[in-house]
Amino acid sequence: MDEAALWAELHALAQRAVGLSEPNPRVACRLVLPDGRAFDGHTQQAGGPHAEVMALRAAQAAGADPRGATAWVTLEPCSHHGRTPPCCDALLAAGVARVVVAAVDPNPRVAGRGVERLRAAGVRVDVLGPDHPAALATRELNIGFWSRMVRGRPWVRMKVAASLDGTTALANGTSQWITGAAARADGHAWRRRAGALLTGIGTVRADDPRLDVRLVPTARQPLRVVLDSALEIDPAARILQPPGAVLLYTAQDEAAREAAQARRRALQALGVTLVDLPGPPKVAGGPPKVDLAAVLADLAAREVNELHVEAGAKLNASWWRAGLVDELLLYLAPRLLGPGEPLAALPPLARLEDGVALRFVDATPVGDDLRLRARVPGREPWAT
Amino acid sequence: MDEAALWAELHALAQRAVGLSEPNPRVACRLVLPDGRAFDGHTQQAGGPHAEVMALRAAQAAGADPRGATAWVTLEPCSHHGRTPPCCDALLAAGVARVVVAAVDPNPRVAGRGVERLRAAGVRVDVLGPDHPAALATRELNIGFWSRMVRGRPWVRMKVAASLDGTTALANGTSQWITGAAARADGHAWRRRAGALLTGIGTVRADDPRLDVRLVPTARQPLRVVLDSALEIDPAARILQPPGAVLLYTAQDEAAREAAQARRRALQALGVTLVDLPGPPKVAGGPPKVDLAAVLADLAAREVNELHVEAGAKLNASWWRAGLVDELLLYLAPRLLGPGEPLAALPPLARLEDGVALRFVDATPVGDDLRLRARVPGREPWAT
Repeated sequence: MDEAALWAELHALAQRAVGLSEPNPRVACRLVLPDGRAFDGHTQQAGGPHAEVMALRAAQAAGADPRGATAWVTLEPCSHHGRTPPCCDALLAAGVARVVVAAVDPNPRVAGRGVERLRAAGVRVDVLGPDHPAALATRELNIGFWSRMVRGRPWVRMKVAASLDGTTALANGTSQWITGAAARADGHAWRRRAGALLTGIGTVRADDPRLDVRLVPTARQPLRVVLDSALEIDPAARILQPPGAVLLYTAQDEAAREAAQARRRALQALGVTLVDLPGPPKVAGGPPKVDLAAVLADLAAREVNELHVEAGAKLNASWWRAGLVDELLLYLAPRLLGPGEPLAALPPLARLEDGVALRFVDATPVGDDLRLRARVPGREPWAT
Repeated sequence: MDEAALWAELHALAQRAVGLSEPNPRVACRLVLPDGRAFDGHTQQAGGPHAEVMALRAAQAAGADPRGATAWVTLEPCSHHGRTPPCCDALLAAGVARVVVAAVDPNPRVAGRGVERLRAAGVRVDVLGPDHPAALATRELNIGFWSRMVRGRPWVRMKVAASLDGTTALANGTSQWITGAAARADGHAWRRRAGALLTGIGTVRADDPRLDVRLVPTARQPLRVVLDSALEIDPAARILQPPGAVLLYTAQDEAAREAAQARRRALQALGVTLVDLPGPPKVAGGPPKVDLAAVLADLAAREVNELHVEAGAKLNASWWRAGLVDELLLYLAPRLLGPGEPLAALPPLARLEDGVALRFVDATPVGDDLRLRARVPGREPWAT
């Protein structure tokens, strides 16, 4: 098997950690024994074994001796005690002779120490160059992990479904469904990738969404996050019901918290986590609004790698105006709907250069619709 | 050479008739002699030789004897005296033994008679099935010719450049340039395909466009068409200047024509053709508007195959509301621009089903932008 095909298989395997290994990176490992037999593994749920250990266990289960083997790994083996012992130790204990690493771990607790440790123990270690397609594939699959490690904040992906004329809901609010079933299921596959799904109180009131992953299978539900500056959520809102945890950001100060004590206790009794991050008002003299940059820092501290935003035009515009969106995930339906809710309620511009500049990443047909991805240029958490 | 590769080469050759052979279809022919030598030809300018005659001339120029040859043609050879003598006669006179036809000519004056005539003279004729990729390629390349022959009206393609949030111009009117240089050149390649380019008096006044083909080479300029219900055009407008002919549709009745005699004569002195097609007003009691269906019938009578519409939101909406747009050619720039001019000034809808339903045909990166094509389902002028 040539190396390109091997890496393609390993990245397909690493994909199986999506919806499972959060907040750990999605990694795959193939152990190739001197006799040619190969054993694979990928990261399990957090606290469970990493890819290298899974591959070693597979070899063990088959009664194979891993001494002298080559381990192909999509990410540098960890060298630190996290939730599990270091994978480097497991590889050394097994007598692996060579390790080929697609990308060095951006985690400052690893960041090359895994490679060093293996080399110090006499293992031959090859690390692919940063422009190698397999290195790029590892980073793309783990863009949120990279973002959290390198930038200290999640990778922010905003999902929108719109008509070709940019309408996301009719003037009367109707938006179900602008895109077809295939696009909606694909949207849930992107939700599954995320550590957290975020919306605003406006959307909760208007659409009462569940904001969970249900159209594709998943081993875990992302954290659900609502921005609710004035703590107005109805305790009967569907988003507060199982499955999955709920985190509610408010902009309440001491006095507001005092006044809302009963509401806060009722929500906490439902299992909701309340975090108060008051920021400046949107308009001078208006009520305080949740500080979006502080939300990202808090979510990173909670180990959220990818943040998936599905909100209305107003909150979307706040994210764009704060310069905090990294990627737009746009489902375009092949129809014209006339005036209605826009993708983001941005202010009128005087010059084209004042708009939000993006770069297309891909365009893919999904059912009858088209899925576009576009990124803010240079925003990837690695040198491009 | 296998047949698929042969047809691909012939369709690439037929493409070279774009911007040249209007209003004749874009056709290519390959003559394969019994000794294996091959000679190609494609349709020349109207009144000039068709593809079959070009291929026969190429053989003649090489001193080759076409007797016993097989002629591969992307469209049925013509059987009637048009601007030139019938190609069937030329093939028979040359002693061609076999003809392979990708698609039967939709022209009611041909429509199978070319095949019959060749067969009656003892030539073996094979016609590909209508689902054969080469038959489809011929129809797509000549969709306007098919439309005019089958439906008696041009194929109407509306071109729009917009941001991802559907804005085609800022609120202050700025629209140059939302898309990049590659997309603009690609837009001119689509203009070149058209028999006529159409805009409205609103765009003429706001942007003073030339509406010609200048960013790609062309042997001819399409007819330029302005819808100007009340005949308000400034005789100094750039669209009235060379190159190319100008056709102006008004909604003037007898009295209005009388009152505008001087203006009309001045425009006619500039070489402008005036055609009065008054239709019902847009709003009750308003001024008459040009009858769009009548425009299409008139343009078909003038042998326009593809009509390329580049207009503002109001006129675009009128075309959509009349149900007369066949295809949307949408250049999407990877940026957000906020509120401004929409793709089409459609009225607010009560239900999603009341929108314009389309079907994506393709999505292609062009420079930094994305080109989308979408069609009204079932509108192709052939059974699908």
